[in-house]
Parts: sequence; C-alpha cells; structure tokens
Amino acid sequence: MAKDKTIYEYRNPLTTRYASQSMAGLFSEQMRAEVWRELWIYLAEAEMSLGLPIRSSQIDQMKKFQKAVDLKRIREIELKLKHDVMSHVKAFGEQAPLAEPIIHLGATSAFVTDNGDVLILKRALELVREKLVEVLSSLRVQILKWKSVAAVGYTHFQPAQPVTIGKRLSLWAQDLLWDLEELDHVLDRLRPLGCKGATGTQASFLVLFDGDQKRVDELDLTVSQKMGFEESVAVSGQTLSRKVDTWFMNALSGIASSFSKMSYDLRLLQHTGEWAEPFGKSQIGSSAMAYKRNPMLAERITSLSRFLISLSQNAAWTHATQWLERSLDDSANRRIVLAEGFLTADALCEMAYRIVSGLELNKKGIQERLDQSAGLFETEAQMMRATLKGGSRQKEHEKIRKKTVLGKSSGSGKVRSSLPTFTGAAALQAERFVKNHLDPALKSRKSRRKSEALFSAVSV
Amino acid sequence: MAKDKTIYEYRNPLTTRYASQSMAGLFSEQMRAEVWRELWIYLAEAEMSLGLPIRSSQIDQMKKFQKAVDLKRIREIELKLKHDVMSHVKAFGEQAPLAEPIIHLGATSAFVTDNGDVLILKRALELVREKLVEVLSSLRVQILKWKSVAAVGYTHFQPAQPVTIGKRLSLWAQDLLWDLEELDHVLDRLRPLGCKGATGTQASFLVLFDGDQKRVDELDLTVSQKMGFEESVAVSGQTLSRKVDTWFMNALSGIASSFSKMSYDLRLLQHTGEWAEPFGKSQIGSSAMAYKRNPMLAERITSLSRFLISLSQNAAWTHATQWLERSLDDSANRRIVLAEGFLTADALCEMAYRIVSGLELNKKGIQERLDQSAGLFETEAQMMRATLKGGSRQKEHEKIRKKTVLGKSSGSGKVRSSLPTFTGAAALQAERFVKNHLDPALKSRKSRRKSEALFSAVSV
Amino acid sequence: MAKDKTIYEYRNPLTTRYASQSMAGLFSEQMRAEVWRELWIYLAEAEMSLGLPIRSSQIDQMKKFQKAVDLKRIREIELKLKHDVMSHVKAFGEQAPLAEPIIHLGATSAFVTDNGDVLILKRALELVREKLVEVLSSLRVQILKWKSVAAVGYTHFQPAQPVTIGKRLSLWAQDLLWDLEELDHVLDRLRPLGCKGATGTQASFLVLFDGDQKRVDELDLTVSQKMGFEESVAVSGQTLSRKVDTWFMNALSGIASSFSKMSYDLRLLQHTGEWAEPFGKSQIGSSAMAYKRNPMLAERITSLSRFLISLSQNAAWTHATQWLERSLDDSANRRIVLAEGFLTADALCEMAYRIVSGLELNKKGIQERLDQSAGLFETEAQMMRATLKGGSRQKEHEKIRKKTVLGKSSGSGKVRSSLPTFTGAAALQAERFVKNHLDPALKSRKSRRKSEALFSAVSV
Amino acid sequence: MAKDKTIYEYRNPLTTRYASQSMAGLFSEQMRAEVWRELWIYLAEAEMSLGLPIRSSQIDQMKKFQKAVDLKRIREIELKLKHDVMSHVKAFGEQAPLAEPIIHLGATSAFVTDNGDVLILKRALELVREKLVEVLSSLRVQILKWKSVAAVGYTHFQPAQPVTIGKRLSLWAQDLLWDLEELDHVLDRLRPLGCKGATGTQASFLVLFDGDQKRVDELDLTVSQKMGFEESVAVSGQTLSRKVDTWFMNALSGIASSFSKMSYDLRLLQHTGEWAEPFGKSQIGSSAMAYKRNPMLAERITSLSRFLISLSQNAAWTHATQWLERSLDDSANRRIVLAEGFLTADALCEMAYRIVSGLELNKKGIQERLDQSAGLFETEAQMMRATLKGGSRQKEHEKIRKKTVLGKSSGSGKVRSSLPTFTGAAALQAERFVKNHLDPALKSRKSRRKSEALFSAVSV
Repeated sequence: MAKDKTIYEYRNPLTTRYASQSMAGLFSEQMRAEVWRELWIYLAEAEMSLGLPIRSSQIDQMKKFQKAVDLKRIREIELKLKHDVMSHVKAFGEQAPLAEPIIHLGATSAFVTDNGDVLILKRALELVREKLVEVLSSLRVQILKWKSVAAVGYTHFQPAQPVTIGKRLSLWAQDLLWDLEELDHVLDRLRPLGCKGATGTQASFLVLFDGDQKRVDELDLTVSQKMGFEESVAVSGQTLSRKVDTWFMNALSGIASSFSKMSYDLRLLQHTGEWAEPFGKSQIGSSAMAYKRNPMLAERITSLSRFLISLSQNAAWTHATQWLERSLDDSANRRIVLAEGFLTADALCEMAYRIVSGLELNKKGIQERLDQSAGLFETEAQMMRATLKGGSRQKEHEKIRKKTVLGKSSGSGKVRSSLPTFTGAAALQAERFVKNHLDPALKSRKSRRKSEALFSAVSV
Repeated sequence: MAKDKTIYEYRNPLTTRYASQSMAGLFSEQMRAEVWRELWIYLAEAEMSLGLPIRSSQIDQMKKFQKAVDLKRIREIELKLKHDVMSHVKAFGEQAPLAEPIIHLGATSAFVTDNGDVLILKRALELVREKLVEVLSSLRVQILKWKSVAAVGYTHFQPAQPVTIGKRLSLWAQDLLWDLEELDHVLDRLRPLGCKGATGTQASFLVLFDGDQKRVDELDLTVSQKMGFEESVAVSGQTLSRKVDTWFMNALSGIASSFSKMSYDLRLLQHTGEWAEPFGKSQIGSSAMAYKRNPMLAERITSLSRFLISLSQNAAWTHATQWLERSLDDSANRRIVLAEGFLTADALCEMAYRIVSGLELNKKGIQERLDQSAGLFETEAQMMRATLKGGSRQKEHEKIRKKTVLGKSSGSGKVRSSLPTFTGAAALQAERFVKNHLDPALKSRKSRRKSEALFSAVSV
Repeated sequence: MAKDKTIYEYRNPLTTRYASQSMAGLFSEQMRAEVWRELWIYLAEAEMSLGLPIRSSQIDQMKKFQKAVDLKRIREIELKLKHDVMSHVKAFGEQAPLAEPIIHLGATSAFVTDNGDVLILKRALELVREKLVEVLSSLRVQILKWKSVAAVGYTHFQPAQPVTIGKRLSLWAQDLLWDLEELDHVLDRLRPLGCKGATGTQASFLVLFDGDQKRVDELDLTVSQKMGFEESVAVSGQTLSRKVDTWFMNALSGIASSFSKMSYDLRLLQHTGEWAEPFGKSQIGSSAMAYKRNPMLAERITSLSRFLISLSQNAAWTHATQWLERSLDDSANRRIVLAEGFLTADALCEMAYRIVSGLELNKKGIQERLDQSAGLFETEAQMMRATLKGGSRQKEHEKIRKKTVLGKSSGSGKVRSSLPTFTGAAALQAERFVKNHLDPALKSRKSRRKSEALFSAVSV
Repeated sequence: MAKDKTIYEYRNPLTTRYASQSMAGLFSEQMRAEVWRELWIYLAEAEMSLGLPIRSSQIDQMKKFQKAVDLKRIREIELKLKHDVMSHVKAFGEQAPLAEPIIHLGATSAFVTDNGDVLILKRALELVREKLVEVLSSLRVQILKWKSVAAVGYTHFQPAQPVTIGKRLSLWAQDLLWDLEELDHVLDRLRPLGCKGATGTQASFLVLFDGDQKRVDELDLTVSQKMGFEESVAVSGQTLSRKVDTWFMNALSGIASSFSKMSYDLRLLQHTGEWAEPFGKSQIGSSAMAYKRNPMLAERITSLSRFLISLSQNAAWTHATQWLERSLDDSANRRIVLAEGFLTADALCEMAYRIVSGLELNKKGIQERLDQSAGLFETEAQMMRATLKGGSRQKEHEKIRKKTVLGKSSGSGKVRSSLPTFTGAAALQAERFVKNHLDPALKSRKSRRKSEALFSAVSV
C-alpha cells in the first residue's frame, strides 16, 4: 500500500460518479449538524417566547455558530461518550458557552434526529421532484414531436401492431407522472415529530411548563411551523413511526421501476437500430471492440434502478421489526438506506434527462422494421372485417394463424406492403395524454430553475 | 403413497388455514372465468348499442351461461391450444353457440385478463379495507378504555418514561389509519384498461367502427363504466402499466409491516406479563411443556407479515423488467403474487381482529413493572427542574447518569416510589387522536356488515 | 356466486398448471401426516430397543395406520386444541388405541415437525436434482451438436465478436452445473434434528432413560439413521437452526437465476430470429394477432424464476429474527415459502427441459446476422496485428473507433465479408467443458429414471 | 451552505463509523487502480515469456508506477472518453511511455475489471474469514466458561425447560461455524476470468499467438497462477458468470443472519437482566433518560445485518437479468453492492467481537429467573415418569395443562423450587460441540494476527 492511508477509503460511487453534489450535500455530516443546530435554535426561541428563562443572547450565540460546525471536535467527544447527539450538544455548547445550559432543554435525541431527518428528507424529495418535472417536460417535447411517426409495436419482443413513437413515449410519461403524484402524496402526509419527549408523552415539557398543557401544545406547534409544516404528527413513541420511511422508499422505488422499464425499452430499440441514446464524440464503447456503440447510459439506469428497488424494501423491514416505544435497530440502517436511496434516485433522474433530451431516432431503421412486418399487421383488420360480414371471429383467427405461424420457422414476417402504416388512435392518444394529464401536472409544478442548472452531476 | 392420488396435492395454507373463504373465492379459477364472461358481455352490449351487428339473443345466451363455467372443458381445450383466453372463448362459445362468432370481438387477451384483474383486485381491496376498518373500530374501543392506565414505556426494550396503554394502542392505530388511507388512495387512482386493442392503439376497434373515433371512445368509456369506473386508463400498451401492481402490493405491505410491529409489541408484553392475547380454554401451548401459554397468534402475524412484505417487492421487479408494449414474463408471477398477497393481508386482518378485540391486560403485572422502575422515571423531571433553577442541563444529566448507570450491573431499576405515575399528556393524546383522526376516518368508511359476519376464517 | 362454494377456492397455479404432481405430493397435508407417523414409529422402535416398556403390538398398530390418515378427523380435533401436532397425536391414537399412551413419548412437537421437514425437503431436493441432471444431459447433447456453428456474439445486445452456439450453451450449462454442486453441498450438510427435546437439552429423554446419557445418545443416533442420515445435528434449540432453510432457498434461488438468465437469452434470440423455443402445432400465440409466435415458455421461466428469487430471501429473514431457543414466527411462513420454493424450482426444470430438448435453431437466420456484422469483427484482429508490428494498441483502437462508430448512426454494422467466421477457441472450449466438467458430474449423478417419466407436469 | 463545498459530501457511515480501514481500503479507487496495474503487469510478463515482442524495460516501467496512481489524471481522461478502463490505460501509459503500446494487449476491459474484482473480493473474503475465526475463538472461551451454568430456556420468549449458558452460546457458534465453512466453500470454487477476450472465445489472443492454442492456454494459466489460483474459469462470456457474485453475497448474508439472531437474543436477555453487552464508563445511554443502559451494540448489529441481508438479494437479480455474452447493467450496481456487502460484514464482525469478548453475565439475575419458573419445569419430568409407569402421555399432558395454564392469567410461573435445576445434557452438548466441531475447524484456520490488531474499527 502507498504511504498515505487516506487514499484508501471506500467512496460510494453514487457520490463520486453518479449523483449530483446538491443531493450528496443534503446527506453530509455537515448538513446533519447544521440542521440539528437549526432545530435547537427553533426550540430555544419557542421556549423563550413561551416564558422559559432563556435569553436572546443565548440564542444569538447559537445562531452565530449554526454553520460553524467543527466535525473533528464532535468526533473526538463522541469517541468518549458513545452518543452522537450528546457529542453535538457538547461541541455546540463549547462554541456557544452562554447557551450551553439550555441547549436541548426538555428534548430527547429524537428531537433533533427525527425532526432533522424530516427536514433533510423533505428537501431531498423536493429536489428529486424538481428533476422529475424536468424529465417529464423534456419527454413532453419528444412526445409531441414524434406523436405521429409510426413504428413497429413489440409484444413479447416480437413484431406486433404498429404504434407511434410519441405514443410509446407517453407510456413512459404516464408511469413517471404517477410517480410524481406519489412524491406529492408523501409530502402531503409528512409531519415532523415536533416536541414529544422521551417516550412521546411530552412529560418533560409538561414539567418544564409546570403542567401547562396549552403551552406545551404551543411549543409543539411553533417548532413545527418554524420547520415549515402546519402541524406535528398526532402521536409518536420516542420517534416517528418508521412507516414514514416506507413512504419515501416506496416513492423512490416507483421512480426506479419506471426508469428501469424505460431503460429496457431503450436497450432493445438500440439493438433493433431504431433508437439510440446520445453518444459522445470521444466516447469509447469497448476497450476491445473499437466499433461498438453501446447503450451505456440505459444499462446504467437498469443497474442503479435495481439497486434502488432492492434497497427500498429495507424500510418496510425496519418498520416491521420495531419494538414498543422505539428500538435502536433502525438508526445505522436508515443512515445508509435513506441517503443512498435518494442519491440513486437523483442519479437516475440525471441520466434519464440526458437520454430523453438527447434521444436519437433513426427514421430509416424504424421504417425498415415496419416494412419487414407490414403484411402481418393487416391480418387483424382482415379478421375484424370478416366477422363484421357475418363470419366467425374464431374461425378467421385460426385461418390466419395456420397461414402465418405454421408457414415459417422464424417469428418475424417478411411480407412487404405498400399501404401507409395504420397506427389506430396512437397519435391522438399521445396528444390527449399531454393535454389532459401531463400539461396540468407540469403547470402546477413548474421548476424555478433552468434545467442546465438543475442537472449537474458530472457523470461518466 | 396411498392409492388416491388426489390427496397428494399441495394446498396453500393461506386457503386451508389462515384466510377467509370470501377472499379465497375472489382468486379462484371459477371467479376468473365468471369475470371474463362478465366482461365479454359488457363488450358485446356496448358494441351492439354502438351499432355493430350483434343481436340481443346472442347476449342473452352469454348471460345465461355466465356463471355456468365448465372448468374441465376449458382445461381440455387449453391443453391443445396452449392459450388460456382462447380456450375460455371456445368453451364459452360451445355453451353459447349463437354468440360464438362475436365473443371477444375486437379484443385482445388483455381485454379480459387485465380488466378482469382490475375487477377482482378492486373487490379484494375493498374486502381488506372493510376488515381494516373493523380492526380500527375495535382498537378505538380499547384506546378509549385504557387511555389513562399507566404502564412502563420501553425504549430499547429497557424501562423508559411511562406511557398509558391507550396511548400505546393509538400508535398501532395511527399506523393502520395511514394504511387505510393508502388503500383509498389506490382505489382513487385505479382505472381499468378499457378497450385498447393489441398494442393499445385501438386499431382493431377503429377497423370495427370504420374509423369512427367517437364511437371507439364511447365503447372504451361504456365498458369502463359498466365495470364501475368513471373512465379507463389514459394510455396503455397491450396491458395496463405493471406499476399498478406495485400500488396494490405496497399498500398490502404497509398493512403487513404495521401488523408486524404490533405483533412484536404483543410478544414482548406477553413476556413481561403485562398483556396477553386471547387463549382458548382447550388450547394447547406446547406438546412437551403442558404449562405453556404462548403468544401464538401474534407470532403467526409476525410470520405471515414477513411473507407478505417479501412478496410485495415482486411487483416492482415485474414492472421494472417489462419490455416495450408488453412481455409475458408477468403473467404466471402475478397470478401467485397478487392472489397470495391479498390472501395474506386478509389472514392478517382476521388474526389482528381476534387479538385486538380479545386483548387481555394484566393490571397487576403492569403495576409491578411500574413499581420496579419508578425511582428512575423521576430523574428526568429532576433534570428539568434543576435547569430551570439555573443549573446546566448537561451537568445534571451527567450527575444522574453516574448515579444510576454506574451504580449497578443490571439495566433495570429497583427503586420503589409512592408517587402516582406521571404519564404526561399520554391520555390526552390518545383521546385527541381518536377524536381528531380516527373518528372522522371511521365515520366515512363505516362497514355495512357486522364484524362477526366479516371475520369468518376458521383459523387454527 | 354459484351454489357450490367449494369451487371458489384459490388453488396455487404452481400445482394446477406448472409443477409436477410428484413435487406437489411431497408438500401435501397427507404426506406431512404420513411422515410424522413414520417418525413416531422410528421413535417407538428405538425406545423399545433401548429398553423402554413399549410392546411390538403397539408399534405394529402404528405401522398399520401409517398411511391411513384421516385428515378430516385431525382437522376437527385441531379446531378445538389449536395445536396441530397434538391433533395428529390424538387422531393417530384413536386409530391405534394400543399405541395411544406411548405416541410422541419424550418428544416435543419439533421432533415431528422439524425431522419431518428434513425428510420432505431432502426428498424434494433429490427430485429437483434428478431433473437438473436431465436438463444438463439434454444440454450436453445440444452443446456437442452445435459446438462449431458460429453465431454473432452479443455484448450490450450489440453485435460483438462471434461465438459458437455450443459455446454459448456451455455458459448455461456451467451455471447449472454449479447449481447442481450446490444441491449436493446442501445434502452433504443436512442433518436431522434427531431427539433433542423441548429446548434441545434432551432433558425429557434423560428422564425417560433415568439419566443414562449413553442410551439417550443411542436413541438420537438410531432415529437419525432410520431417517437415512449418519448422525443428527450437533446442537439445537427446540428446533434446528433456521439457517438450514437458507441453504435450501439459496440453492433454489441459484437454479432460478440460472434459468432466468437462460430465458432472457432465449427471448432475445427468438427476436433476432436465430433461435426459437418449441411451439405446438395447435398453439396460439396471441388472441388478437393470429400470426404471432411468442417465446411463451421462456417468458414463463423469467416470470417464475423472479418469483422464486424473491421468495428465497424470506428464509434469511426468518433465521435473522428468531429468538433464543425458538420463536413460532417461523412456522406459517415456512409452510408456504419452502413448499412454493420447491414447486417453482420443479416447474422451472420442467419448462427448461422442454425448451432445451426441443430447441430450434434457424441456421439461415444465424448466418444472416453474421453477414451483417462480419466486417466489424475483423477490426479487433487488425488491432492485434498492428500492435505486433510495433504499432500502439491504443492508437489503432482510436483509428478503428473513429471509422466505425462516428461513421454511422446505428450501432449495427452492414459490411459483408466472404471470410469464414473466426470464433477463436469457442468450439474447443465447449468440447473441453463437456469432457472435463460436465461429463464427470453427470456420470456420478446419473438418474435412474427415463426423462419421459421424470418430466410429468402437464404444463399449459 | 458554508463556503467550502467539499465538506458537503455524503460519506457512507460504514467507512466513517462502522467498518475497519483495512476493509475500506480494499474497495478504494486507489486499490482498484493498483490491482488493474498488477494485472496488466502479469499479462505483459506472460505474453513476453510466451514470445510476444515485449521488452523487460517496458514491464519494469509498469512495475515502477504500479502504485503511483494519479486518480485525478485518470478522472480527467475519463470525462472525455467515458470509458473507465481506457482512461486507466491511457494514464498508465502516460506514466510508463515505454509500455504504452503494449498495455492491455489482447485484452478487453473485463480482463482487468473481472480479474481485479476476483483479487479484491478474495482478499476481502479472507479478511472477513479471519475475523470470523476470532469471533469464534472468543465464543469458544465463553462456551467453556459457562457450559454448566443453568438459565431459563425461552421458547416463544416464555419460560421453557432450562438450558445452560454455554449451550446457548454453542447455538450461536454452530451458525457461525457453518458460515465459516461457507466462506471456504466460496474460496474453493472461485476462479479468475483469466485471459478470455472480448466474448470469451480467446479470439484476440489466438490472433496474437498466430493461432497457437497451446500458447493461448499457457497464457490463460500463467496469468491465473500469478494471481494465486490454480486455474481460470472453464468458460465465460465477456465476463465471469455473475452467479459468482451470488456466492459471495449469500455467504455474507449468512453471516448477517447469524449475527442478527445473536443480537436479538442479546437484546432480549439484556431486558430480562440476565446478560448485558459491555458498556463504557463514560458512555451515555439516552440524552433524556440519564439512567439508561441500552444494548446499543446489539441493536446496531440488528440494524446493519438487516442492511446486508437485503443487499445480498441484489446479486441474484443481477445474475438473473444478464443478457447473452454480457450486458453492462451489472457494473454500477456491483460496485456498490459488493463493496458495501463486505464493509457491512466487516463491521458486524467488529461489533460481534466486542460483544462476545466483553459479554457480562449477571448470575443473580439468571438465578432469579430460574427461581420464578422452577415449579413448571418439573412438570415435563412428571409426565415422563407417569407414562413409564403405564399412564397415558396424552392424559398426563392434559392434566398438567389444566392445572398450570388455566390456573392463572399470566404465562409466567411463580412456584419456587429447592431442587438443583436440571439442564439435561446441555453442558455435555456444549463441551462436545467445542471438541468435535469447533476445535477442529479453528485449528485449521488459525489466524496469524493477534485479535487486537485484527479488530481495528474505531466504532462509536
């Protein structure tokens, strides 16, 4: 090994390669510490305004050092105390000695850990949502652009009745739109822990306020509102129900499965030569086969969405195995699972945006595929027409089946046709989908940022 | 082996032991066939009303045989055709020869399979919802009954600040209430496939209606409304997006993780002697240790909820790996996963209802536990009071820690107290939860059936 | 609903459609009861031979009724006792009144449940193993038959250096061969519970034998040997460690992932028209598109292997969450998971055998694909040769990349070549693999049955 | 946010908190680069020795820079080429210009990625194995120390026939011993990719060696032997079968489920006051409840083992969904899953070692528990004795059940006994397990390092 040991550190490829710095920042130690301090300030402010003997000078000092986190010092203390929240309290108190006696007053660790997670997870969800909106906006452009261009449909990856490109893209969009609604659904339901105390009974706060339930209620509400919520959760043990994690992870898993499905479509259509993902001019496809142009982004989406889907189940297991007012078998697990869940979702959005906005369609390849199967596609119409004329649908089906399936060994037809390809209502469906579903959804969720600023991962 | 081979069949214990017959019936071959015929009738009716040459006599004959399914004959045909929908079409046609030429007209298999699944899954979801409402109603009674009775709180399964029984039960109820909302959320979003044709373009229906989009739209809408929905899905490939399955399975997994958490609490409290699940007079706890009274129902809930949670992930994998307009790698899997998912959820509700409605609380045991730890609980209040008097919260914490933790080798305290146990706002929280959250939710979802009729599984 | 309620039962499609009756029989209630009685007979015989007051007439009566199980009567009793083993004991005792006093003597339920499972699981594993051997034998024939036939290789599902068909098949075989070794590995490690008593201490047996450890050891050993094992497990709680389940489920999951990978290859190659799975003459591919010939078997393999893989994780969760000498949160779960795991593995073997033994290769389609990419394949050799002549490998790579990738929009090459396709050592590798790896493995595991008898599922 | 953006990085808590630096180092970018260079050196050496025009000076230059990796430069190049192996080749070539033309000669990326992974994974497995051996050695000491000390057995977490502490520990040890065997099993089966070329046919190497198969075989073998293996894998596509990953992940998952089971036992016994994990003198249990002493290490083991178990399934999904000669939907996923799998296993071993070696047993608490249930335990012996005297086992069971279960509402007995606790063969079993199973296994796998050196994670 080289001398400098620091270079031998495992760094998660999500942060070094795939996800954006904005997302990674949300799950940094630094952000965690800042958010905790933010919460201690909210608590002290609210306690002061409700009559507890806390002075402005104490709060001012806390504010002054809110972002001046000394992670090394915290670490040092933690090695001794073996309790992370108390280490942060102590280190903060060292920086803000005036405030030292009242930091964390009435609170248990979960006050900062759980409320802090709610703040971070909310921001992470909003970031994913913003990116998803942009992916959908980009998809919208492509749907409208290609709404009438015919292409072979594929069922069982065998040629089937033709569709249009725009219509196919609308299937991706519909999945993602549902995912977007799910993100909003989670945000709607999300409530912070507020001020609930050691086992959720607010006993310590009632002691502080001398049994005055009204002021305890006020404290709980005020802190929640400072956090940006209308109210806190109705009841809790020491922590929020871990069911809340499943909402996040299910929503992220939904995004992953949508992108995964999309990536399979792309990989198959890059094979047929109909579609291709963007490919850099200096990009190398294979170190051995210099001629190769592989759907690498799409494959990476398959790869990372698999990771996210499998990760998501974890939240359900954690919830399912919690004990009574709380057990600590959630903590270490959640720190990895929630963070990496969001990092992966972020990375998926980044890659999907690149693919969708840079999608290359090969009109010639698309037409060739249509020509190869054209004769077959007319057979369904034949069957309909014969039935309308009084024939039996079932007998017509059998006639056609015998002629086509038994007549050749390969599944792909070769009969050429000179008729224009009939794609049914595909174009209209795509158009209606945009108008009735996508546009209303995008309108109410328009991003404030330009997409160039939003998608920042320097992916390789 | 014995002579009669039929007895050597694997029968899923969910049907033979744990779930109700109502739920099992929904996922029977018979029901599947009936629902398909129901859909073919809807299709023919709508097609006739929109001017296609279909006669009432044809529809009458279909209706006559809707439930007279001959599964043996269908099976016989399928062994030859190797296509299940076509086998059903053929068998139905044999019974209703007048209708034979027009059954399934314009449709692809997914018309019956996917619309049929939507009908069955909706009914299954409604059954689970109804049961969940009853579990919550039963829980409501217990919450109010025990809202003020103090008990030791447990964090890390170590004694912690006291709670009340009713408050603890409200944590279970909150989880389940969220699950209930999730069921409604799925029902809100659910749309049938409607009439979309082979690759979702409605091409075959446009041919049938001679290119008249308006009548094709009408057909799609009419069939969906006959099915009990306001509209069909906006766009589809050959099938509905398999994302829809994830909604169902996530909702069911949510129920499972809530019940699992509840079962762990119960198993732990049956150990401490504070709570116990109902136990039959003739029931045997152990074949070796005749004195045993084990929390068998709760353990079974842990067991089956584990099954359901792990099952649920399947839906995401299926969605994530679908190809283009559809691939058939979903079918066999979904037939097991969706059915067993609902059967398990049903079984869990049955067992949970028995436990909640028959819950035994041992007041003496509860009080003994409180007495054992009473001295410790006062220390948090001491710390608050000292801080209010100008002391440092952190120093008080350290003082108490040294006295208690380092003073003994076991984690449980033994100091007795004569003070009444202080449970903070626990009783009030429980009461408010019922009033502000549970009651409004139950009111709008009141079951039509008596709970005795609803919970019918003869569980062993 | 129709009048006869019995038809509304969920029957697992694994038993009704996909798996063999032999496998389903192993997991039937009937088999379970027979195996338990088998074990009670072994116990009584061993106890008698070691001097306990048990008479031959008692054992004879037990033997007489070993397979005459009255499941209805057992069920009736169980509804009262709520304990399945005691119900079986009682029902057996009613049939064999002489033996009634000594059935289950010294034993706890786990004696029959766990030892019984070991017997059933062992037989199930042996059945899967036998089928896997046949799949491999069939694959062997195909590998040798096609070992030298060239075909396009695919990486990223883009054309890559050519392989041979036989070589590609050898990749499937290698995976399955490793799976086969894994089955043997499980069988090697498997030990029955033997006679361990309520918490694994053999206390009850020591009481029976008046503290004589030697006879207790003898009992444990004798029963294990009657069961067909050399010895029992070294130590246990009330049950075997649930880790043992993970061995089974991991082994089955391994088979599933191998078959899944195989099924993807097939589905892709059926698209390219190179390969096709067998297709019945009367088989229908699509109810709408009569011309379709879909890879339905392969898709079903993908489908069911997904089910099995996801199921397999369950065993690890069960093991991971067991408590102390045992908890009962394993039982209901294991009854489903282990049974359905084996049923699925059985179904996968059945389908894989049909595909492999009936595999259709389309030589014309294979050659067309080769022709399309032939020019590209020569570029790697060019690069090698240039490097040998003193050029830089990296510069040659860049030259070729520029010419090929940047020269066209589609990833597939179109240059035709008249040279014979160079497939390197592919044929030799296939041959060596059969000779050095497959043949030795098959030789030592040769099935006793003809494959026609072995593969009996009437799959549809 | 603070100015310095670098502090806002997500750093996986496995590296910052839980796992050892030795393990993290194996999965660093630096190590990856070093191992790749190691492989390129092996390749060049072997090629030279087999007659290719490669000079010692070229190899010398490669060796000189093997560990002098410039990760920044590599990154810079990769942003342009979008191909990581080619970037490493180029950067290495810049440092070793003499060698530049022949680096990677005949190879495809998988030569370094797959062979490199094999080297790293092997070393990681060996590190885990070494730690597991130490955990077992520590457990061995405890088993022997406590082999005869009686304690209440628990089934369903209800008092059951007594066991001994040592016997209970032997159950943990047996699970871990099986896991250890599994690690060896994986190492036994592991083979490197060797030199197989773009699609596994060795075509490029045959071109290099002018069609001389013998020298190509020699190359494949030599490189594999330099890597420390006897031979390379028999056949491969572009990469090793991804089944190999499942071996690793299943083995790690096995370790996780064993430790998880152990952690549950500990958490329950810390509740009963019988056992306790080591607790630092300055350690804080709760920020609110200063008196608390929580089983934090055990809970963390539950937490992280859950993460590892869920992670492990990923490998099966990756294998199951691979396409033909390879698809790239494995890469990003594997980089996370395999690395974090090993990091978690490493962390689990570190924590388990601390717990096992510092385990505190509270003899007084253990005895109290025994006293509480003593009367009940005698009932099983009563039943045995009555049966031996000619009574019916079943009737005795019913008599005892009625007296004990129906006589009280709580499951725990209160009858005191003055007899010494009878623990059957528990002590003997523990002793025999050590002698017959554990000792032979430890002997052949003795670690070379002292345990203090081995366990180095500064866990908090």
